[in-house]
Formats: sequence, structure tokens, C-alpha cells
Amino acid sequence: MLTHSEAFALLNRSDNILILTHRNPDGDAVGSMFALYYLLKNLGKTVRCIIDDVSKSLSFPMAKDAFGDFEPDFIVTVDVADNKLLTNDTLALYGERVDLAIDHHAANKPFSKELLLDSTAAAACEVLYDMIKQAGLEITPDMANSLYLGISTDTGCFRYPNTTARTLLAASELVSAGADNGEINRIVFETKTREYVHFEALAMNSLKTYYDGKCAVLVLRQDMFRKTGVSEEDTHGIAALPRQIEGVLVGIVIKERTDGTYKISMRTNDPVCASDICAVFGGGGHRLAAGCELSGTESEVVSAVLKAVGEELGAI
Amino acid sequence: MLTHSEAFALLNRSDNILILTHRNPDGDAVGSMFALYYLLKNLGKTVRCIIDDVSKSLSFPMAKDAFGDFEPDFIVTVDVADNKLLTNDTLALYGERVDLAIDHHAANKPFSKELLLDSTAAAACEVLYDMIKQAGLEITPDMANSLYLGISTDTGCFRYPNTTARTLLAASELVSAGADNGEINRIVFETKTREYVHFEALAMNSLKTYYDGKCAVLVLRQDMFRKTGVSEEDTHGIAALPRQIEGVLVGIVIKERTDGTYKISMRTNDPVCASDICAVFGGGGHRLAAGCELSGTESEVVSAVLKAVGEELGAI
Repeated sequence: MLTHSEAFALLNRSDNILILTHRNPDGDAVGSMFALYYLLKNLGKTVRCIIDDVSKSLSFPMAKDAFGDFEPDFIVTVDVADNKLLTNDTLALYGERVDLAIDHHAANKPFSKELLLDSTAAAACEVLYDMIKQAGLEITPDMANSLYLGISTDTGCFRYPNTTARTLLAASELVSAGADNGEINRIVFETKTREYVHFEALAMNSLKTYYDGKCAVLVLRQDMFRKTGVSEEDTHGIAALPRQIEGVLVGIVIKERTDGTYKISMRTNDPVCASDICAVFGGGGHRLAAGCELSGTESEVVSAVLKAVGEELGAI
Repeated sequence: MLTHSEAFALLNRSDNILILTHRNPDGDAVGSMFALYYLLKNLGKTVRCIIDDVSKSLSFPMAKDAFGDFEPDFIVTVDVADNKLLTNDTLALYGERVDLAIDHHAANKPFSKELLLDSTAAAACEVLYDMIKQAGLEITPDMANSLYLGISTDTGCFRYPNTTARTLLAASELVSAGADNGEINRIVFETKTREYVHFEALAMNSLKTYYDGKCAVLVLRQDMFRKTGVSEEDTHGIAALPRQIEGVLVGIVIKERTDGTYKISMRTNDPVCASDICAVFGGGGHRLAAGCELSGTESEVVSAVLKAVGEELGAI
């Protein structure tokens, strides 16, 4: 395991660097990828990125010239807890060749030559922020906007209990360095399309509770996406809704994919550990926010997840 | 107008202090009242508070021994922009006798002997935080929790554009001083009763848009409160919803009161000024968040508000 300054030294003596992040990219994936991109470009490196489809509201940090054919000499991943979370294409090409992984997931499964892991950081962007600060480098407005995006999205805009005094101090310094927090928050947290408002209402109608109201489940079906015109990558925010209901310890969103598999997003309140439950199905994440994937019919998937939740709740 | 240190000196040489805040108290009203209460108690003062009904989720900072009959020698208001915003009882008894007002509203109408006003602060609690820091006093966990409540609620948990680097730095230091931010956020922002989820769905069904989608209006009727069992003071959060819809510049919530009058909460996006529109009806507030009150039938009230919005939008 590297220190922040060792990781920076390794990046600083490399060139022709390829940055990868996990599939189904969230704000921290996009933000940490482009914060690192701008940092390395400013250091005179040649850098390219590979990223899956990004929700429009999270795409503002992306540099157009960051993409294109490239033979890398050094490969770095950001916010990737396990190389299985890379896209299939990227996994096949680069999955076994990663030189450095920069991450903040306690459940990280090492897959790279070197690892910079700080599981006390709220976001991969907080790890990068610390690395940049310790290296004594200036944070440009592009870097500040990217880092702010990752930190704000991974903390639910500073709502979630992973938000520490350090996280808020980093956010303060990023705003001083030029992060346009008001505008980013407006785009990411305060803007819903009419279609999304419709989608959310449909989804909330599917809400069911189990185990005396301790577990709430929303199912997002393909027909809801079709009916409203909302795309899957625009529904990250919905994962937070079931846990918001009073008395709920385990909030679950089960998303039907086009290939018939299901993606499970789980948010828990203390003392329930989300990553323990998701680990039953080969998934992972954080103590209060984790995910996994299942195959089967909808009712099989719901039953399997509820059984694991019940075992964790000690209710069965 | 006093400086922070002059205001503190004035409080420090007073005793038998009564603290007042505005009616329909929000998180900043409760938070600034009790941050000041704990500060003054720690300085050995005799202190009492008068406050209207407080939403259960905002009540945690309240000290039980802060209330009771009292003949004050010094009266201070917190977060009160105009003495008309005191409850009628408090206005009649103390409205003309206020010694010091501590506030952050740019539209403040002076009514007290002395005034500490910082309209660049996101919350009255941010003004108090600065006053306490400049006085070099320790922030106790009780004070930290109270100040955090006010700052987090007045900024939508750091989402709104009134959140500055200074605001985030204050929040960071409050967490270091013992503010239980994870738990406060869970109670205030992340917990909805099932009744409230039902209420929100009913309210969203009343959503209408005007002026090519630039203005969105929600009407909260007494029958919605009766049908769901939700009480008025628990619906502060709903004011933020209409502005969240893409393209909306003016988001309005019109709340029917039991006495047949209507309370209007307005949230705008740049460049529309909410307090200018609300001022037409004798109301006020901030540039992007303001309020006013109107009498009449629902359709008369909606028409009057829309006319004022239209004039501001230049659409009529």
C-alpha cells in the first residue's frame, strides 16, 4: 500500500497514462477521473481516459480531448474497488495490467501493482485532494470543479454520515480554489426533468416495506424507463429514497436491466451493514451504501435479497 | 450597525436576557436561538427563550429549562428581519423593546436599538458562529449542534448558492467541535414519515407550470393536511421542490392556512429575484428565497402572485 506522496511520485515519473474508472459511472468516478486528468496534463503528461456512458448532469468536467486511441505506458484506476467493476471491454484489455489503483472503498479487492487506498475518505476525490495538497500543487478551477463533483455526490451533498470535518474543509478549500458549488449543486442535486418527476412518482408507487417497516424496496422496471423516457444512468439519485422513510434501516432499489439481470443498490442506517448483505451476492461497497447484481425473475431476486436482509436483521 | 465584537460586548455586559425569534420557526430560528442560549448560559447569564411551535425534527437543540415567566432586562432577536415576523403575542409585549437584533437578511427592516447584520452570511447561525469565534470563546457540543442545524437548514444542507467557502469552513469546524452532522442530517434531511411521502405525492399532483415552464406552482390545501395527518410545520422542505424542475426560474408553494389566508414560499434561480416579487405583497427574504402572505380565495391569490411573477419575468 502506497502513501499519498508515494502514489504521486509514481504518477509524476510516468507518462502516456491511461485513466480508467468503474462502469455505470457516478459523480465520484467522473470527478476523480477528470481531476487526475487535469492534474497530469498540467504536469505535461500525455493522458487518455476511457469511461462508460455518463449521465448528462455529471458530464461537465469531461475534457473532449481526453479520448481516443492510445497505447499506454502506465494505467491508473480511480474509484474502482474491484477490476470486475470495469466495463467488460476495459477489463479484457487492461484488467490485469493496472499499475496503480486510487480508491476509498473499505471493501477494495486489490488487483493492481500498487494501491493508494484511504477508506476513511468520503470519496475517491477526497483521496486525490489529499494527494494533491500533500504534493503542494495548485488546484486549478477545472480540478476544483471535478473534485467537488465527486465529493458532493458521494456524500449526498454533505448529508451522509461519511461526511467528516475533513470532507467539509476540503469542500471549503475547493470552493476557494474556484469550484462553482452553487451551479454544480443546481445541476446535480436541484434539477429534475419533468420526465424524472414522473418517473419518481411511478417508482414511489412500487414502494413496499418488509420486516415491520425496517426494510423498504423500490423496483425500477424497464417499462417505467420506456413509459417516461428516463434513461437508467439518470436514476442514481433514486437509490437514496427508500432509506429516507422513518423507521427504515435497509433501503433497497432493484433495477431491471435490459439483459434481464437486476442491479441492487442498498442504503442502510446504523447498525445494519450494507456491504455485508451485498457480499452474500458477490457485491460490495461501503458500510451504509453498497450494491450487487443478481439474475433470475423479479420475484426470485426480491426474495433472495429479502432473505439476506432478514438474516442480517436477525428477523428470520 | 454593530460589529460582531461590539454585539458580543453588549451581550456580555447584560443579564436577564430574553431571546426571541420569528414565528413559524425554521432550523435557523431554532438553531440561532439555542446557540445563543447555550453561549449566554455558559457566561453565567440568566436566559429565557420564547418560541412558537417547532417541528419535531428541528427540536433537538431545545433546552427544557429555557422557558418560563421572566421579566427581562435585555431583549435580543435572532433571524428576525422585521418585528412583524414575531408572533402576535410577542410583538405586542416586546416588539418595540428589542435591544439587539442579530440577523442575516439583506431585506432587514431595523426595529431594535442595536443591530448586528451580515447579509453575506448564509444563516443567522453563521453570524453567531463568527461572533463566537471572534470573541475567542470555545464552541461546546450543544452550541455546535445548534449552529450546525441553522447553517445546514438555511443552505439546504450546503446545496444552495448562498453556501460559501466560509460556510463550509464553519461547518467543518462545528463538526470538529462536536456537531453530530450525520445524525442531524439523518433526522432533518433524510427522514420522511410515510404520511409525509403520501403528502408530497398529493402535493406534486397539484403542480402546474406557467410562462412556458419558467414558473411552477404547488398549492398545499388544508384538506391535504387533514387527509394525510401531516402538520404544517413539517412541510418546510416542500418549498424547494417546484424550483427543482428543469427550466423553472420561479418555484412557488402556496400554503392555505386555517384562517383562510395563504402563505407563499418562493424560490428562484438567477436572474430572478424572489424578494423583489414578494415585496410587492409586503413580504421579503433573500434574493433566491423569499416569502409573503396574501388574503383572498385560492384563485385570487394564485392570480395575484402569477401577475407579479409575470411582471418580473417580463412576460406580460
